[in-house]
Amino acid sequence: MQEFLQNAKNASRIVASLEPKTKDKILCQMADALEKNSQNIIDENQKDLEEAKENNLSSAMLDRLLLNEKRIIEMATALREIAALREPVGRVLDGWVVPSGLRIEKVTIPIGVIGIIYESRPNVTSDTAALCFKSGNVCVLKGGKEANYSNAIIASVLQEVLVENGLPKEIISLLPDNTREGIGKLIKMDKYVDLIIPRGGEALIRYVSENATVPVVKHDKGVCHLFIDEDANLENALKIAINAKCQRPSACNSLETLLVHWSIADIFLPAMKEAFDAQNTQIKGCEKTQELLHVELASEEDFHTEHLSNALSIKIVQNVDEAIAHIAKYGSGHSESIITENYTIGEQFLNEVDAACVYINASTRFTDGGEFGFGAEVGISTNKLHARGPMGINDLTTYKFKVYGKGQVRA
Amino acid sequence: MQEFLQNAKNASRIVASLEPKTKDKILCQMADALEKNSQNIIDENQKDLEEAKENNLSSAMLDRLLLNEKRIIEMATALREIAALREPVGRVLDGWVVPSGLRIEKVTIPIGVIGIIYESRPNVTSDTAALCFKSGNVCVLKGGKEANYSNAIIASVLQEVLVENGLPKEIISLLPDNTREGIGKLIKMDKYVDLIIPRGGEALIRYVSENATVPVVKHDKGVCHLFIDEDANLENALKIAINAKCQRPSACNSLETLLVHWSIADIFLPAMKEAFDAQNTQIKGCEKTQELLHVELASEEDFHTEHLSNALSIKIVQNVDEAIAHIAKYGSGHSESIITENYTIGEQFLNEVDAACVYINASTRFTDGGEFGFGAEVGISTNKLHARGPMGINDLTTYKFKVYGKGQVRA
Repeated sequence: MQEFLQNAKNASRIVASLEPKTKDKILCQMADALEKNSQNIIDENQKDLEEAKENNLSSAMLDRLLLNEKRIIEMATALREIAALREPVGRVLDGWVVPSGLRIEKVTIPIGVIGIIYESRPNVTSDTAALCFKSGNVCVLKGGKEANYSNAIIASVLQEVLVENGLPKEIISLLPDNTREGIGKLIKMDKYVDLIIPRGGEALIRYVSENATVPVVKHDKGVCHLFIDEDANLENALKIAINAKCQRPSACNSLETLLVHWSIADIFLPAMKEAFDAQNTQIKGCEKTQELLHVELASEEDFHTEHLSNALSIKIVQNVDEAIAHIAKYGSGHSESIITENYTIGEQFLNEVDAACVYINASTRFTDGGEFGFGAEVGISTNKLHARGPMGINDLTTYKFKVYGKGQVRA
Repeated sequence: MQEFLQNAKNASRIVASLEPKTKDKILCQMADALEKNSQNIIDENQKDLEEAKENNLSSAMLDRLLLNEKRIIEMATALREIAALREPVGRVLDGWVVPSGLRIEKVTIPIGVIGIIYESRPNVTSDTAALCFKSGNVCVLKGGKEANYSNAIIASVLQEVLVENGLPKEIISLLPDNTREGIGKLIKMDKYVDLIIPRGGEALIRYVSENATVPVVKHDKGVCHLFIDEDANLENALKIAINAKCQRPSACNSLETLLVHWSIADIFLPAMKEAFDAQNTQIKGCEKTQELLHVELASEEDFHTEHLSNALSIKIVQNVDEAIAHIAKYGSGHSESIITENYTIGEQFLNEVDAACVYINASTRFTDGGEFGFGAEVGISTNKLHARGPMGINDLTTYKFKVYGKGQVRA
């Protein structure tokens, strides 16, 4: 493992100093190579699918795993889109001259070696490798075991293009020890690895956070809220609540708890329930909600839950302060929204709620790299530092200060 | 500990929403309070000094610990200067409109609860508390045991001002369990603490990095290099090498290894040695250096060493590539400098050396918040992420996305 990561570290100096046009040319060659090798990729993917069937994986899981001609073309297209993104390295973030006459520039640079732990969809392998490559980083990929054959062939197709261009194949690496022990070693190698991005279940993320000595940017759960204020446009409120909960309940930016101002609860909630019923949404509610709707009582536990399914809890609150306090207690700092026409209430919510994304009069479902205009996304960070919320390619860079002198010494 | 940190977390919501002018007024009141209580502070400081003498601390340590009227006035002045800094919260870092019509703003916010571990100088207590307060954060301070009495009285003077203004005293907290076990608990409380900043010896920083589940911004050692290229202005080279090594050898931005291009070594090094000898600098060198100078052989270990004293190693290299490779192997990513008049060589060094601060034709000693124009500094980060190099007050903020809609739902 140590030798493997030493090679990755050495490769990081090479990829960091490639010219933009070289990187873009290679990314387009990688796209071509995926398409040219599509039959090989489909054959290897078939092995994963067969094992998955033997292991009785759900049909949803099988679909996530499946690669066909169309999906491989989509993977290639994603690589060409990443090639077309603006160069993320060398952006001047700030610059100034200090009294000593030194000229200082704050400039973006690659992070170095990035370990990424993810599951299922094999397209993540090529997307992530391409995002890391474009931003001048080495990636060490640890995909799900269920996609072992698919990830191996995709990585080897991309590596072949690197080698054809005289570059070390370690620039795109798969973690050689694809087990929990392998992860355990990787996350402690702070001498070689600069960042770990775990995307996956709570147990994995907890394990990584507790054991890593390498800095971690987590992609953890979303317990998202929507607060319907007394000054809400109720038509918008209804439409946004349905979208936030029902459009894709398995997404981390989907709604878990609806907070409703008491003064409009009796008009709003019956109509809201009718709309949710039409979507077969499972509703629980607080005691006050139960006075208005025929629903089960929501427990303390329910308010902490990321359902990942078409289910939610409703709570009636006194005012925006109670809504903000509820979110501070139960929210996971992901995405929170208020529906109101009241300027002061809206400002208070936007300023006082601490989350990666705080919305007014919009669905929480927009928390997404694509919707934010970042192009391909690395994921949605639930970290508070370095990268927060939708992570685009610029979040795969850090910075250094370049300082230009003319012989200055410190007095 | 848990209850204490829960209170700190609750207080963080209050300090985060204070108006700028309220914070600045309170900071000035704190400055006044320090001056008004100077005799009390000096009396408590005396107890620390007596214990320190009993424990046979060095006179340098005693001087670091000492508070007198003049130093307390300096502490108060620092608070007034922090009050005068530009408000760090609410800065709009970026803003744009996406195709869905949502208007997105990336805005700075406080980090939350910040644990800071430091040593000796009691003025760090008031400086750090003020920087955290101005940036809307709660601080949990863990100073050195040798300054227990001094830190306690300073914190209590500041807390009294908070309470007089109707604010919870937990906004400025001292860690109640001031032991290694106390630190061990603090750094695992990721539910309440958002960031740990350890400033101190290698052992402390290693301990915190290995055991924390809270994100860490380290202030670790500096193994800094100066490369004298063949196209250097040798007069500048000499002056800058002396400044970088000798002006304050105990600083983390001081020079540890001088790298010299072979083609100028025979002219440059004898003059350089004469200048170092005049400063009583202890010199070791590589084998090639030994052919030119009468010095001890520098070992592998020497090239890894942060001397913190007036000592350095010299290595003769073939070219800028070898200099960059040496820095990649032995450097700590702190501050690196090249002396050259050659444009291409200078560009290569600035771009390829991975360190927080990379200089051309200037002394590494400028890596400092004050010299960078940041005003008071939190320290010098050796992290690669979040904050790198001199950490100013803006590095005590993170960001959130505010998203302004008019009823949008995701398609």
